[in-house]
Amino acid sequence: MQRITINPNQPVTDTLQLTCEQAHYLQRVLRLKPGDVFIAQDGQGQQWQAQLTAAGLAKILSPLHTLSPPAKLVLVAALPKTGFDDVVRQATELGVTHIQPLLSERTLLKPSPKKLERWRRIAREASEQCERVYVPEIAPPVEFTQWMRDGVTNTGNYLCVPRVNALGLLPCVQTLLADSPQQSVQVAIGPEGGWTPEEITVAIAQGYQETSLGSGILRATTAALTALAIISSVREQLS
Amino acid sequence: MQRITINPNQPVTDTLQLTCEQAHYLQRVLRLKPGDVFIAQDGQGQQWQAQLTAAGLAKILSPLHTLSPPAKLVLVAALPKTGFDDVVRQATELGVTHIQPLLSERTLLKPSPKKLERWRRIAREASEQCERVYVPEIAPPVEFTQWMRDGVTNTGNYLCVPRVNALGLLPCVQTLLADSPQQSVQVAIGPEGGWTPEEITVAIAQGYQETSLGSGILRATTAALTALAIISSVREQLS
Repeated sequence: MQRITINPNQPVTDTLQLTCEQAHYLQRVLRLKPGDVFIAQDGQGQQWQAQLTAAGLAKILSPLHTLSPPAKLVLVAALPKTGFDDVVRQATELGVTHIQPLLSERTLLKPSPKKLERWRRIAREASEQCERVYVPEIAPPVEFTQWMRDGVTNTGNYLCVPRVNALGLLPCVQTLLADSPQQSVQVAIGPEGGWTPEEITVAIAQGYQETSLGSGILRATTAALTALAIISSVREQLS
Repeated sequence: MQRITINPNQPVTDTLQLTCEQAHYLQRVLRLKPGDVFIAQDGQGQQWQAQLTAAGLAKILSPLHTLSPPAKLVLVAALPKTGFDDVVRQATELGVTHIQPLLSERTLLKPSPKKLERWRRIAREASEQCERVYVPEIAPPVEFTQWMRDGVTNTGNYLCVPRVNALGLLPCVQTLLADSPQQSVQVAIGPEGGWTPEEITVAIAQGYQETSLGSGILRATTAALTALAIISSVREQLS
């Protein structure tokens, strides 16, 4: 069934007051007519069956089963010059829960604040299309050094590096998740020019493990999706 | 070092006669000047160090180590409505060796012959950029029924299907490749609307195994890359 993500703070009683943008999306993009039923979700696990009434209003028919939050899967991505829109969309399909855009030494893009709104919209729409009840959180871009100081967790932090004799991400994640498949995983992908040697040193000192995505050379956007595909598959296999 | 793929039948003696397109690419796109050194590859494992001389000519300096062919990895992809250019490029990065575009029941795109030339050019350029010495072969699109009659091999054929209780592609490929990591693998991805029930029945009868890429819904283009990322990672892990 077609679905729309409302704002988490938008009140849901026996009716739902749609924003102009939501009403437009339901009527013009999804082509629903008064009387048609759809799913409204807050992007954080709650969802309702709703019926479109007059312009701008929806009647709540029933709350749906609330899903428990998915295991944490964090993509820390140095912003590529182009293609980040696709990364956000495909990462959402692959079950990412948090995206942290990073400004690293060799990052060429300094995004405008409008970009963040755009990425959040893409994540919402991709979640609706692939029926993910939890919309990934996309944080504002931060500097590499700040993330390494504040963002790293105790275990399960992987820094993807090209072509060194690092262990493969696949066996590393299989070992990590073997005992607790739901444990949080964080994976960091460099920009086109790669991480600087200093960045790699800092990341390792902060608890990141260097891992390899294989002997081939991957573009930054392909690397992000490859890493997420591997982690999601291992989690599915072990859950 | 920058590289260019020549035609497999283009004669290489002590000089290499460049085509106009190749000369243009070296001089205008890669911005090489007379005297600059580059790598010429035939896309089938042979490569040479060469030096750009006057317009349209290259001096062969030395043959480089010929690499043995990579293990066969075949992507059989029902053509999506949009996005196949990106699939070709990213599949090349991920080490695909053969791409078979498929016209299935629900395929909406009937590509012009020009498309095939375009995909082959994208595969050549992606191979050069990610330094893959073997350029993937892209076959002309065929009908689903023809491929199922002629294209299936003895083992290692996986049909990706959404959301059934099929085994995951990851454990299936790990079992297949455990004893012989170099064995050929073929993976088939449906179009936007999925395979029809009849197509699934035919594929299974011809030796395909149904596998799942996880509980989420993936767009056709994301599914292709996810499958290839999984297979390549398992092969790297076991090789």
